Amino acid sequence: MTDVVTLSLDDVRRLSLEVLLSNGMSEAQAAAIAKVITAAERDECYSHGVYRLIGCVRSMTLGKVVRDAIPQVIDHAPSVVRVDARYGYSCLAFELGVPLLLAKARQNGIAALIINNCFHFSALWAEVEAVSAEGLAALALTPSHSWVAPAGGKEPLFGTNPFAFSWPRPAGHSYTFDFATSEVARGEIELRRRGGETIPLGWGLDQGGEPTTDPASALAGAMVTFGGHKGSALSTMIELLAGPLIGDFMSFESKAYDEGVGAVPCHGELVIALDPERFLGSEVIVNLSRAERLFDAITGQGARLPSQRRYDARVRTVIEGVRVPSALYEDILALLPQDANREPASFHLATSAENM
Amino acid sequence: MTDVVTLSLDDVRRLSLEVLLSNGMSEAQAAAIAKVITAAERDECYSHGVYRLIGCVRSMTLGKVVRDAIPQVIDHAPSVVRVDARYGYSCLAFELGVPLLLAKARQNGIAALIINNCFHFSALWAEVEAVSAEGLAALALTPSHSWVAPAGGKEPLFGTNPFAFSWPRPAGHSYTFDFATSEVARGEIELRRRGGETIPLGWGLDQGGEPTTDPASALAGAMVTFGGHKGSALSTMIELLAGPLIGDFMSFESKAYDEGVGAVPCHGELVIALDPERFLGSEVIVNLSRAERLFDAITGQGARLPSQRRYDARVRTVIEGVRVPSALYEDILALLPQDANREPASFHLATSAENM
Repeated sequence: MTDVVTLSLDDVRRLSLEVLLSNGMSEAQAAAIAKVITAAERDECYSHGVYRLIGCVRSMTLGKVVRDAIPQVIDHAPSVVRVDARYGYSCLAFELGVPLLLAKARQNGIAALIINNCFHFSALWAEVEAVSAEGLAALALTPSHSWVAPAGGKEPLFGTNPFAFSWPRPAGHSYTFDFATSEVARGEIELRRRGGETIPLGWGLDQGGEPTTDPASALAGAMVTFGGHKGSALSTMIELLAGPLIGDFMSFESKAYDEGVGAVPCHGELVIALDPERFLGSEVIVNLSRAERLFDAITGQGARLPSQRRYDARVRTVIEGVRVPSALYEDILALLPQDANREPASFHLATSAENM
Repeated sequence: MTDVVTLSLDDVRRLSLEVLLSNGMSEAQAAAIAKVITAAERDECYSHGVYRLIGCVRSMTLGKVVRDAIPQVIDHAPSVVRVDARYGYSCLAFELGVPLLLAKARQNGIAALIINNCFHFSALWAEVEAVSAEGLAALALTPSHSWVAPAGGKEPLFGTNPFAFSWPRPAGHSYTFDFATSEVARGEIELRRRGGETIPLGWGLDQGGEPTTDPASALAGAMVTFGGHKGSALSTMIELLAGPLIGDFMSFESKAYDEGVGAVPCHGELVIALDPERFLGSEVIVNLSRAERLFDAITGQGARLPSQRRYDARVRTVIEGVRVPSALYEDILALLPQDANREPASFHLATSAENM
């Protein structure tokens, strides 16, 4: 049983905005982040929900993030748009770069969006979904901080390096996945440590490079890639394509840049968009329908599509609102100016004790 | 101890050419295939070496493959080149499409090569390496035949769907990987079955969808993806991008098209090329050097780079030639016209008995 407060999605957006604005963020930056946080709460993707406000404000306080950065969109090449985020968060930079990415992909078939000099914020699923909502397929890659050892190694080198993909579907939600190339998310291991639990063998290595079941040892040592040498190869590819190829930090460089401060990773991101209409012309409808047969064959044998849980949550939360643990809610309210003569309860619909 | 014959790389090329030409293949098609077979033997990548000649001739005999197909290169969009392989093998189609792919990527930053209506032959590593040898990064994807169940499912749907990537390095060999998105290659399971051995749990499911250690049950049932639901998601992406996006078969459609004949998969392929020079301009050299620090950090902690075994072999075989089991060699010679007044021994340097 946990005390929870219930917030409408509009409450989430307003709360996020107020926290960010009152901590000195520009309106444009705050609006872009509030949008992603609201989408995450809507999908019950709590790791990118209001919880993120705490780290977000913290990273700003640490002095690394530029709170009012105005991203610069550069028409870099016929099929490449580059956005210099100017050391603000990634969300606004992504939003500003997308229109030119879409235009280039529609004209040329395939195009790339580079984001440089951004502090990581977004869940990549939100970004690739924004592209597939426009009828294009998209991939997105980004490094993070060196926490993961290469297969056969023992020292942290790669980030948790997410890989996301979205495919437009004629009706209903897109086919979307977004996974870390580490065996599990770093937060999973942290949760076990806090809970005094062990972790399964295969999640991490201790500082001597030996497999460990102790979460603290794994956090001090190294996480491992999913899928052995194959996941390790993918993670390397992500370091290269969203690092040197775009002139930005790899995970070990981003970690060094952080100087142990513990801010979110500063790095770049690569998004690739492919336009089925430009690839297929008049054959686009028949081919998108054909893709549906693959999804039917997956679900028809009892397997799930990757984002189904998020889409199910979406139907629910739009009507019922989202539930935020009271303790977390109080922590977030504490980020607001404490001298203001305001009513915290105005942000939420109800408080109740229920199973979370 | 196995009887082996030693062939020079030129022997391999000439033998391959003669087998293909004498079985009715056009010179252009045969030369492109012989080149890939020779590269595979050079790298001791036996699965795509002279062994392939047997299946290659068999697929031609089955009447599906067009032996003298002349691929048509189409300038489809500013960043898309399409090659209609016209139901020949993939190798010549790829060779003919690459120059325009390179030109488009150099001009626009990123470009895609679509191959349609080809019979699968090539190892994707050979293709992405051909692009990185020109200084560009490349990804390549292709479906195959439905042999692999989606994670959480139990029926074969996906192909073994390889994913390949290559990154150009200023000195020495490229960083290249090419892996199946199935847990293991189908040939691995077949080898165990032939040898009367079991397979580890996690390689395949029996026809009831239960994990099995019996290779025959797994071959009759379904293989599984590597890395659980993440590998399954990647495999789905490959079906979509190298299937409906390019207007070509997914693995279950290719399997149906085969009508149980057992030819190699007929399908399409997607190659994406990214030009570091177009992305980075004058910063290209410093960034390619920076990427070397990642490779140094991988090998510096005792981990290996993916294609190192192939590159080590390459140094050896160029000088020493390659060793082919005598039984396989005889099977290949049997593909030549038996009435010809020729000397089989002319193809090889030496016969010896040694450990293979």
